[in-house]
Amino acid sequence: MTHTLTACVAAARIRAGELTSESLVGACLARIAAREAEVGAWQYLDADKAREQARAADRRAARGPLHGVPIGVKDIMDTDDMPTTLGSPIYAKRQPQWDAACVAAARAAGAIVLGKTVSTEFAYFQPGKTRNPHHPLHTPGGSSSGSAAAVADCMVPLAFGSQTAASVIRPAAFCGVLGYKASHGEFSLSGIRPFAESLDSLGMLARSIEDLALLRAVLLGKPATALAALRVPPKLGLCRTGQWALADARTQAAVEAFATRCRQAGAVVSEIDLPEHFTALVDAHKTIMAFEAAHNYIYETTRWAAQLSEAFLALTETGRLVDQAAYRDAQRQIALSGQQLRSIAGHLDALITPAAVGEAPLAASGTGDPVMCRMWTALHLPALSVPFAKGDHGLPLAVQLVAAVGADDLLLQVGHWVNTYVPTT
Amino acid sequence: MTHTLTACVAAARIRAGELTSESLVGACLARIAAREAEVGAWQYLDADKAREQARAADRRAARGPLHGVPIGVKDIMDTDDMPTTLGSPIYAKRQPQWDAACVAAARAAGAIVLGKTVSTEFAYFQPGKTRNPHHPLHTPGGSSSGSAAAVADCMVPLAFGSQTAASVIRPAAFCGVLGYKASHGEFSLSGIRPFAESLDSLGMLARSIEDLALLRAVLLGKPATALAALRVPPKLGLCRTGQWALADARTQAAVEAFATRCRQAGAVVSEIDLPEHFTALVDAHKTIMAFEAAHNYIYETTRWAAQLSEAFLALTETGRLVDQAAYRDAQRQIALSGQQLRSIAGHLDALITPAAVGEAPLAASGTGDPVMCRMWTALHLPALSVPFAKGDHGLPLAVQLVAAVGADDLLLQVGHWVNTYVPTT
Repeated sequence: MTHTLTACVAAARIRAGELTSESLVGACLARIAAREAEVGAWQYLDADKAREQARAADRRAARGPLHGVPIGVKDIMDTDDMPTTLGSPIYAKRQPQWDAACVAAARAAGAIVLGKTVSTEFAYFQPGKTRNPHHPLHTPGGSSSGSAAAVADCMVPLAFGSQTAASVIRPAAFCGVLGYKASHGEFSLSGIRPFAESLDSLGMLARSIEDLALLRAVLLGKPATALAALRVPPKLGLCRTGQWALADARTQAAVEAFATRCRQAGAVVSEIDLPEHFTALVDAHKTIMAFEAAHNYIYETTRWAAQLSEAFLALTETGRLVDQAAYRDAQRQIALSGQQLRSIAGHLDALITPAAVGEAPLAASGTGDPVMCRMWTALHLPALSVPFAKGDHGLPLAVQLVAAVGADDLLLQVGHWVNTYVPTT
Repeated sequence: MTHTLTACVAAARIRAGELTSESLVGACLARIAAREAEVGAWQYLDADKAREQARAADRRAARGPLHGVPIGVKDIMDTDDMPTTLGSPIYAKRQPQWDAACVAAARAAGAIVLGKTVSTEFAYFQPGKTRNPHHPLHTPGGSSSGSAAAVADCMVPLAFGSQTAASVIRPAAFCGVLGYKASHGEFSLSGIRPFAESLDSLGMLARSIEDLALLRAVLLGKPATALAALRVPPKLGLCRTGQWALADARTQAAVEAFATRCRQAGAVVSEIDLPEHFTALVDAHKTIMAFEAAHNYIYETTRWAAQLSEAFLALTETGRLVDQAAYRDAQRQIALSGQQLRSIAGHLDALITPAAVGEAPLAASGTGDPVMCRMWTALHLPALSVPFAKGDHGLPLAVQLVAAVGADDLLLQVGHWVNTYVPTT
């Protein structure tokens, strides 16, 4: 079952001469060949080229901590050797002349870009072809649909995603993998077309917390040391948020059960009630997202409107009607709430909160509701989706861990603690 | 002298049927033909296509407030019909498939992109071919070299620039034109490769303050109304800054004379002494710029190092050695100083400060020192370079007006007041 290896394990075996990149890449490609017709995770895949790169990696001394390990890259991230369509027919044949910074960093560390994973249109709502690997009638979530599905289906151990509303946390939750959305500004977004620059953040999808830490270290240019274990159990806050009533009963029960199990495992878990005005951050997020998208996509809306989805046109139309003063008010409101949150929860290592309102809905209904992530994304916080339970249809349910801005390392350490001490249901 | 018309005047004449776009564009092209060999402002120019677009504009009803008006676009801004090289031989033939958002907005308002103006390499220090239109042995400044020179030489009334350190204010000062660097985050930078995202801001170069206000309105999607005059003279602060001693005697005298003339014209001008620790913002700016550039340009530094200048390689090498903690400290320091500046100068409409250390140096020495802008750019403030005097070699000297974050409209109003009531020396 070579295709199920995590990136860390695979890289270590390749370094030790116990595994070749060629056999690992071959195993992943075989998995894709068997499953892609049902899952539809890939926008672009060149199996021959990937095999060739794997053989080249095997001939060469190890270049870095990801030497010979295949990864998936969300198709909004530029690659100098593969088309980058942004999930839009407008750019079906677009070939960038550079790699996005995250791709270049991964490649410099030895990673092999297996292919480009399906994104919704411009990483907004219009779905691509991808289906949930756990059930083909259900959505994988969006917008990092292909990355989440490919990792969940063991087509690749690790993939890049990005999040402006819920685009990493939600697909990770729906597909039952780990999803890490970085603090805003944590990683370079060069080579990724901005959707809403005040919100856009890089993300990663993986099946092991160590893999997230490894890829994070690679992007920061830091040594890829093992994830340090917390010396004491974490201080956590159960934060139901003003959107709690939107979560289904199973999700509510799972989040509360998770908090209980953390407590049983030794964590201090307090209950965090946010001031009522925090519910308005959902609308502040929407205001900023619409305003910035309208300005960022003026080329497409003025020149290629016929090739844009109704959902995207509606968003940019809404954004054009947002007054600059209202936009600034939304920004101020978020900055103030961020300060307030620091005084409410600054003593905690992470908050426990729902990752989505429930399990993955039917694909026909779209990619699911982003409401459980909007506030945290607006506040620029790093977040981690952790698979924990199953929903009514047997599909994955997840909890979301949220840490302070810049506390990404701590967030992953908490994830590591959870992974070690908190059994899933 | 059709080529010397401002954008507002030209647009009004075209709307009134008193001028054709074809004759305006033809006049600008004739000026370029006469002067380009000496000035070298253009990276790409397609005269036939510009004439064709002008004729098309003349056949059609006016599309917007810039209908038929030629503009220059800095060659780091993507254009779907012209190469975009970023001033680097790596991208000598790079053809984007979209327009940068600012370009798309200007085109949607009827502007004709005459061509791409020379940028230094990636908008950093390595100069292109452009020379100062006032003296061919001197630099036009950088990085928006071609945009400043083209506007100064009346090749085009209006051009886009961008600033990460001093890349709008300094070339505007050296070339003797108005340069407006917007508040950070004020305009979409979509379609412009990030250099250092915490600092990058859009800018504009023009020969009239009304033209800056017009292009600003176009980008914001606001009606292009005339610039409202201030009802009372502005409250200004003469701010010598901790870098004052680096300015030459003529510059110091010019800034002080400007303050005196503002006072004589009715402005309240106080003296603003910044706390000594503000001098450290220059280094904080350098830290952030190097750190972010190193991460944003990892593709080029790992894959195309032989085609990068020494200056650029040195910057990214420096940036790679900056620890993430030091980077965050620099960000915190800037945020705190920003708060402090609001309490020191929040009652003022604008600060008066040098735009550069002196007049344009010889081109052989580079594009000039950005030190007079680093602090203001780091603080995200909007800035306006206003030509005011001459230096020892008869080249332009400017003052810089700086306003609060988001007070861009007020800054242009102050510029309008200065233009109306403050005679140059």
